[in-house]
Amino acid sequence: MLVHEDEPFNAEPTPKVLGRSTLTPINAFYSRNHGPIPTIDHDKWRLVVDGLVDTPLELSLADLKSQFEIHEVVATLQCAGNRRAGFLAVADIPGEDPWQGGAIGTAVWAGARLVDVLAAAGLADDSADLHVDFSAPDVSELATPPQAYGSSIPLSKAMQTEVLLAWRMNGRDLPRVHGAPVRVVAPAYIGARSVKWIDRISVQTTPSDNYFQATAYRILAPSADPDQAGPGDGISLGPWALNSEILTPTDDGSVPAGAVAVTGYAVAPEHRRVVRVEVSADEGATWHDALLDEQPSPWTWVHWRTNLDLDPGNRTLVARAWDDTGTQQPQEAASLWNPKGYGNTAWPTKTIHVDQERGT
Amino acid sequence: MLVHEDEPFNAEPTPKVLGRSTLTPINAFYSRNHGPIPTIDHDKWRLVVDGLVDTPLELSLADLKSQFEIHEVVATLQCAGNRRAGFLAVADIPGEDPWQGGAIGTAVWAGARLVDVLAAAGLADDSADLHVDFSAPDVSELATPPQAYGSSIPLSKAMQTEVLLAWRMNGRDLPRVHGAPVRVVAPAYIGARSVKWIDRISVQTTPSDNYFQATAYRILAPSADPDQAGPGDGISLGPWALNSEILTPTDDGSVPAGAVAVTGYAVAPEHRRVVRVEVSADEGATWHDALLDEQPSPWTWVHWRTNLDLDPGNRTLVARAWDDTGTQQPQEAASLWNPKGYGNTAWPTKTIHVDQERGT
Repeated sequence: MLVHEDEPFNAEPTPKVLGRSTLTPINAFYSRNHGPIPTIDHDKWRLVVDGLVDTPLELSLADLKSQFEIHEVVATLQCAGNRRAGFLAVADIPGEDPWQGGAIGTAVWAGARLVDVLAAAGLADDSADLHVDFSAPDVSELATPPQAYGSSIPLSKAMQTEVLLAWRMNGRDLPRVHGAPVRVVAPAYIGARSVKWIDRISVQTTPSDNYFQATAYRILAPSADPDQAGPGDGISLGPWALNSEILTPTDDGSVPAGAVAVTGYAVAPEHRRVVRVEVSADEGATWHDALLDEQPSPWTWVHWRTNLDLDPGNRTLVARAWDDTGTQQPQEAASLWNPKGYGNTAWPTKTIHVDQERGT
Repeated sequence: MLVHEDEPFNAEPTPKVLGRSTLTPINAFYSRNHGPIPTIDHDKWRLVVDGLVDTPLELSLADLKSQFEIHEVVATLQCAGNRRAGFLAVADIPGEDPWQGGAIGTAVWAGARLVDVLAAAGLADDSADLHVDFSAPDVSELATPPQAYGSSIPLSKAMQTEVLLAWRMNGRDLPRVHGAPVRVVAPAYIGARSVKWIDRISVQTTPSDNYFQATAYRILAPSADPDQAGPGDGISLGPWALNSEILTPTDDGSVPAGAVAVTGYAVAPEHRRVVRVEVSADEGATWHDALLDEQPSPWTWVHWRTNLDLDPGNRTLVARAWDDTGTQQPQEAASLWNPKGYGNTAWPTKTIHVDQERGT
């Protein structure tokens, strides 16, 4: 793992590890934290469900596990800051970790559906313009003012069957670093909405006013001073955009000439599918369609691969994904750059050295 | 109107006309046809509903109007070929009309909800992976082989309340050129799915095999020969992508120096909202946020406007829209160019001449 910070703990796997499998092993799953990882006594833990519900609930872990059907969802989580490193050539982004393309991972999550828990509290109508707010106990000194982490999702998303209160990950009890005893899994939304160590769910008329949602996870205007940003500035990040990354070869890597295997991942926005990924080794003069691996569910990335026949020399590989609306990723990181470095969905590039073929 | 072809009739309004109002007058609404406009005796017209339904229906116009509640939806329709003209500087696109940015319009549509008609035929479960196929009587000699027009939408879309079988447009009976007596209105899908003069609705397990859906309305690989394209090639166009256009000033237009009003429209993909439109007059060095007009419904474009203070000289104006995922339009038409010229969602540009201020 590439550790960006020890406290709060922020780390991502290497591209090589990430590319090995469609399901990401727990020990290779990125970890994004805003404060110290809390230690929670599972026997004493309670989940409060309140706000605009008929019957507020207070559930123990045993209640949650026994009163609700367990469901599995294979889903990708991705940090809003994934691929921020690609912005740094445009302009510096002080105070934020330079995530490579590894702030993303895919796991089999299991737990109760959020919609089932909301129904038990007497909310079964998704037609209202409401929000489901999540609170956690991890206090962040990075917030202004320091506060426990929280965020929300629209009720319309909360009522979808893919949104879980998960206590299992890849068939094992959820590890502490990933939110034990219970975390939210809100597929196709930035990871910041999949709140770890959740202890309260509130149905309310407004989105979360927590610092991290109201002020932090936003695409500010390029000219904005992030230290002066106030609640509501910029584009609030929730559902994510079409994105892709090249995992092999790695940047600055050397490969023998001949058939060079190029692999990576792509993720589509919610409701959409990745339908085409192209790779170019000649500055975009020609493009080669990559083969798309099978997706384990509609809520995951798709891994892709192709072989390019490359002569010796230095090359820049570039990739771009398309979804089923005909949306193509924007080309230049410069056009997407923003002061907090979110949403780098520009075409990924890797500069490689193609050596003489082995044995020649 | 700018008439591209008389037979079949294909015409679009000028940018100036299009920019006058959020609702497009009927006489300024683009017309996209693949064959002669049929003349239909409204008394003899019947709508057949069959396929995977419990009770096939055969409805007269009087049946449709009397047996189903009438609903209004304010919705934008947009042709998949809108803004094709912007592709021609990249490479020629023979055999397709060079639509400017006017193959789009917004109207108040009224009619029966498709979901209500499907329910009457005994289909109320949207969970199956089915398709709703639309047939019309207008025979196109441009199809291979010549055939009546048809297309389909996924059942999951057909069950949404925004999809209408419309017989009214902006408060008047639907005009013949726009599909009288009844047309489909499938908001946020390319216009080709909003079938005019509809006479049959069939629920089936596969998407339409009509030439225009299986072969024609697709983003082929740039190197593909469209005359050799077969069913299933390329990206099938259904739900549309984020797009925008500058309506004033017009290309090659002259304006007096000083505060220059720049206006246009932007459309978001289904489930998404346009949250930011920026305009630059200095090749992208600086960007100005446009003001977004109110949207009459979630299914329409948004008009936008800003004033730029411009000195005399030649300028290129460029705009770009963002949606609420942080998706930004791709920059270059060259990266989106495809042999049939669909889906030009690149940043719109207009070259203008800024003259000395009036009176100076």
